[in-house]
Formats: sequence, structure tokens, C-alpha cells
Amino acid sequence: MDKNTFTKLSYGMYAICTKDNERFCGCIANSAMQITSEPATVAVSINHDNYTNEQIKKYKEFSLCVLGEKINPLVIGTFGFRSARDFDKFKNTEYFIKNGLPVCKEACAYFICKLIDFSETKTHTIFIAQVCECEILKDETPMTYSYYHNVIKGKSPKNAPTYISPEI
Amino acid sequence: MDKNTFTKLSYGMYAICTKDNERFCGCIANSAMQITSEPATVAVSINHDNYTNEQIKKYKEFSLCVLGEKINPLVIGTFGFRSARDFDKFKNTEYFIKNGLPVCKEACAYFICKLIDFSETKTHTIFIAQVCECEILKDETPMTYSYYHNVIKGKSPKNAPTYISPEI
Repeated sequence: MDKNTFTKLSYGMYAICTKDNERFCGCIANSAMQITSEPATVAVSINHDNYTNEQIKKYKEFSLCVLGEKINPLVIGTFGFRSARDFDKFKNTEYFIKNGLPVCKEACAYFICKLIDFSETKTHTIFIAQVCECEILKDETPMTYSYYHNVIKGKSPKNAPTYISPEI
Repeated sequence: MDKNTFTKLSYGMYAICTKDNERFCGCIANSAMQITSEPATVAVSINHDNYTNEQIKKYKEFSLCVLGEKINPLVIGTFGFRSARDFDKFKNTEYFIKNGLPVCKEACAYFICKLIDFSETKTHTIFIAQVCECEILKDETPMTYSYYHNVIKGKSPKNAPTYISPEI
């Protein structure tokens, strides 16, 4: 099995945000997709080890922020490579609040999502959620994972489904 | 809710193929993603009305063929806009057989997938499957749904999760 084959699957880059009792939290995900159009539902896959995973199960709502090609790399650094367990990711991130959830101001679009169901796999949870609200914030090309990988030369955080090894 | 926001989610373009008692069948999907890396699993969303959906539930295996930017548009026409219920999609499609499943010769990569589980939503089934085998067939850029939509000016088949209305 040639694991490089997985680089042929196409993805976007997203910040998935929710909150705990005290503050907002979030993480980067590339595994997000629309599942049905009426009602509009999406599926998002998040590693069990991510703090955001636990909090979505508790709070049952999250925002899905679409990152564009011109996103400040600090947003990916903050949301993808630090843990909200011990770090306030929104301290240095510009955001606004929509339906009680944080939305990154730099995102090119966002979806406010209400959890309907989730499926567990060995390492990740697939969250299925209904979209209550969504909006395009700016006319910017959404960043694909391939663009992040090939143009920005970004790495996968260890908890990403697409993580293969540190060299890739 | 601005439904155009959904065009900001990034996807690839895939032919999902399996078989019934007599022949091979398949359909186009853009909702496919890797879920876990170890073991390697993927999720694919397929409309209830698609014949391929029924057959994956019966046969419990499918091939996920990644379509590249140079794919013959007839492949998309055949797999995306006709039903395998009354049409043999492989009659005029070049393919080879891997683990008993058909793989489009024109694909740039493929995954042979064994069904682990599935979740039902109102209109679509999310199939979760383990990848048993995968291979890159050619060094071609995978087609994104955005490329299909903006460059090839393709439409969504009515059963696609990303279908909005005939005008879009």
C-alpha cells in the first residue's frame, strides 16, 4: 500500500471552533464535507486527542471557518500546532461572535453548525452537524490542503487524519 | 443563510465503483475524505437514490477512483449523470479489476475499500471503509470540484450533496 496515494484526495483547510466553560477553543481540520443539501448538513473528522473534540461533544455546536489562500500563517500555527488545553488560541486571534460561537475574522467564509450525531472510529470522531447559518466573508480562493502542502510547504499536525510521517 | 457559502468547501472528484450480481456499477462522488491514518480509513457520502449506495451495502466493498484534471469528460457524464440501474457504465469505460473490483483506467489514483460501518442521514449514507490497497496510477493533478465547476463548467448531478439548484 503506497500511502502517498492519500495525497491525491482533495481537501480544504478549516478552523473548527467551539467553547468550554471559560473560553473559546478550536483546532485546524482538513476533513470537512457537505453531506446533505436539504437540510444542509456537514461532516467533520477530529482526532480524539484534540481538546476541541471533547468540547464539541459537550457544547454540541461549533463554527467551521474556511481558511483562504491568503490566511495569516499564524492562524494555522496557533490553531493547528498548539493545544487549547493549556493555551488561549483566541488571545491573539481576531474574531467575532456569531450565535455564541467564535468566528475567525480572517476566514473567507464560515458555517455555524449544530451537532446532530457522531460516529467513533479508532482515532477520530466524525461529527455530523446541521448548518444553521453561513456566510461568505471575503472573495478569496479557499486554501486547499494541496496548496498548503505544496505552496506554503506546510506540515500536518500529528492529530490530522492525513498525517503520515514527519518527513512528508 | 447564503447557500453559495457551500461552494467554499473544497472537494475532489471521484468515481465510486462496486458490483451487483451481474455486473459492475458506480457513480460520481465529491464527498470523500480520509478519516484515520492507522488503520487507513475513508468516509464517502452517497445519496440513498443511487444504485451504487444499495450495492455497497450488499457487497461491502468498493473502489474509490480519483479523477484527474485531464479526465475524459465522458467518464463524468457516464458515472455522474446516468443510473447503473438501467445502464452498464463499464460498457464503454476502460477499466481493470483489482481485488474483484473495477478501477477506471483513466483515474490518477485508486483505493480499494472494505466497508466497516455506515451512518444514515435524511438523504445520504456516509460509508466508513478501511483501505486495503491503494496506488497512484499517473502523475496528474487531481481534479477539485472547484476546477470541475469553474474550468470545465460542470454541473452537479441532482443526487450530489453539493447540488443547490439547476442555475448554479
